[in-house]
Amino acid sequence: MCSVVQHIQTHVVLTIDNVARTASMRRLPMTLRDEILDQPAVADRFLARAPETFGPLATTLRSRGIDHVVIAARGTSDHAAIYAQYVFGIRHGWTVALGTPSVVSIYGARPSFDGSLVIGISQSGASPDVVAVVAEARRQGAATLAITNVPGSDLATTAETTIDLGAGPEVAVAATKTYTTELLAIAALSAALAGGPDDPEALARLPDALGSVVGLEPDIIAMSAAQAGADRFLVLARGYEYPTAREWALKLKELGRVFADPYSAADFEHGPLALLEPGVPVLAVVRPGPARDGFVALLDRLRAGFDAELAIATDDPAVVPLARWPLLLPAGTPEWLGPIVSIVVGQLHALHLARARRLDPESPRNLRKVTRTT
Amino acid sequence: MCSVVQHIQTHVVLTIDNVARTASMRRLPMTLRDEILDQPAVADRFLARAPETFGPLATTLRSRGIDHVVIAARGTSDHAAIYAQYVFGIRHGWTVALGTPSVVSIYGARPSFDGSLVIGISQSGASPDVVAVVAEARRQGAATLAITNVPGSDLATTAETTIDLGAGPEVAVAATKTYTTELLAIAALSAALAGGPDDPEALARLPDALGSVVGLEPDIIAMSAAQAGADRFLVLARGYEYPTAREWALKLKELGRVFADPYSAADFEHGPLALLEPGVPVLAVVRPGPARDGFVALLDRLRAGFDAELAIATDDPAVVPLARWPLLLPAGTPEWLGPIVSIVVGQLHALHLARARRLDPESPRNLRKVTRTT
Repeated sequence: MCSVVQHIQTHVVLTIDNVARTASMRRLPMTLRDEILDQPAVADRFLARAPETFGPLATTLRSRGIDHVVIAARGTSDHAAIYAQYVFGIRHGWTVALGTPSVVSIYGARPSFDGSLVIGISQSGASPDVVAVVAEARRQGAATLAITNVPGSDLATTAETTIDLGAGPEVAVAATKTYTTELLAIAALSAALAGGPDDPEALARLPDALGSVVGLEPDIIAMSAAQAGADRFLVLARGYEYPTAREWALKLKELGRVFADPYSAADFEHGPLALLEPGVPVLAVVRPGPARDGFVALLDRLRAGFDAELAIATDDPAVVPLARWPLLLPAGTPEWLGPIVSIVVGQLHALHLARARRLDPESPRNLRKVTRTT
Repeated sequence: MCSVVQHIQTHVVLTIDNVARTASMRRLPMTLRDEILDQPAVADRFLARAPETFGPLATTLRSRGIDHVVIAARGTSDHAAIYAQYVFGIRHGWTVALGTPSVVSIYGARPSFDGSLVIGISQSGASPDVVAVVAEARRQGAATLAITNVPGSDLATTAETTIDLGAGPEVAVAATKTYTTELLAIAALSAALAGGPDDPEALARLPDALGSVVGLEPDIIAMSAAQAGADRFLVLARGYEYPTAREWALKLKELGRVFADPYSAADFEHGPLALLEPGVPVLAVVRPGPARDGFVALLDRLRAGFDAELAIATDDPAVVPLARWPLLLPAGTPEWLGPIVSIVVGQLHALHLARARRLDPESPRNLRKVTRTT
């Protein structure tokens, strides 16, 4: 474990470095809300740099003959890993193992990474357990990739190649813009490796979609005020949006100090449905795609049979009548890119629920920005 | 989706079939508590049949040149899959991908299962999404294995080989003895494939250990009475015992209708630590092994710094002073087999917390025994 002093020193150095690199930074300190609202600009910058990063990276990876992926990550970055599980599984036919880092870092196992692409995802790049998995993979000669906001970090120097998120300093304890940029990095990598002809244009539209979704803030403030007394939430999604449910719930826990339980709609029926009762709002993300109809049927049952109070983030007008709190996502985002946009609803919700509960979203209880677990 | 009528017919037929096969069954219906207390006998029966099952299975699998594992499962069986992730990762050096079944079943992806062992785990063997993953793997010629309590189920007939749990009919909605037998199947498979010289004796001691852990019931009843007013819990473990935290939390949700949040001790510090406050009991499983010291240090911080009310299931006398509610596990179980024993504490806790909260553990709200998700 590194000392707190060392952590602070490192962080200051990197902050100054990032300020120099970041054109859109005007002032310090930024608040959590500033960082949420900064996401359209961050995505725009990331995409502007993407061709120089992802073209060569795709060439390198193609030459390595990847047939499956192992990802090591913790916390919010683990939700980016789940997104990668869907993207690489559905679009590339790769099986994706989400690493249990302790298998390597604590138990000292040496799993064979033959034929694998091993990815470490960490905004700080500092978590020793994530670094340990990537180090072992590199020792074995497997393809290794770091996705991090700190290009000089242990993780970045350990991996063979690094995607620098370049999201600028993230000062708030709760990760927001580094999460959406982690997802964007995975999406851009997928497009570079095996993209369809529509992918570049769809990616290019994301900054506008992010700009549009932050416009839901007034609706979210009103909803949060109505929910200020709730201390338990359920968050549901299916398929590509499952990581959004996970990340939305984590943000609610970190900032709102509420118990928020995330489920894929399929797992929800295997037990947790027992938790549904009056006063437990159900938050859902509904997008087009093959999972839509079954999921909408479930939400309809929850509303009709259990009188569930539904908040639904969706771009599908047909779903709006199910929701007590409809949150209309911008139209035109393909299903696979949706999680980059929809999580902004969850970030704003956690921020404003915290305020409605008279908590300080800049100082979530008990937490530090960089967590170094072994 | 199959109709309810078809489900009921199938279930009745299988129940009668199982009664004929199951020597220890004396009467119907069994209650949830009967099924929990039946686990020593179920484990004993399973191990008596193990040599004839696992010897040939290990020979078959060795001939297939497995280098990684993909597992499809839902709900409780997904926690058995997490156990397999640790067992196969640490003891065999295999990477283990927990399938996102919808990638295959809903999105229609055809991931390459070349070199994989693909395992479907389901007590009923009836969930179409789990069957879909195994069917695709078999179509590709990969090694496939079903672990199920219903040897005539879709899952069993789809896979190349089946481990029949033989746990007898499980009538209660909450899975208990099928879960411990799923873990036992994974452990016996590991021992048959690459076991150490001590494994057979360690496995043979498990029925006695299970018999001993049910003796904690009076302590658990007293603890549950004291916690009857709590509706939020945190459940922590690390390494091999992480699936125990997941399954303990799920049982608390299903039966006690409380929000119970399970975490690996590492992930807990990445955000959810914010949830800790008076009135939120912290449940933990502490076993010997390389993860022990760091985890005990965390629990010590939670107690000293946050006044956390700790319930600790452990076989380590040195940890007992940390706990308000110590639950002494039987000594002598190797770390890797611990989850088969320790979850019984969670099962009894969920049962008695439900009773303390004046709920009926035989009829958990909103749930059915067999959940068929696509």
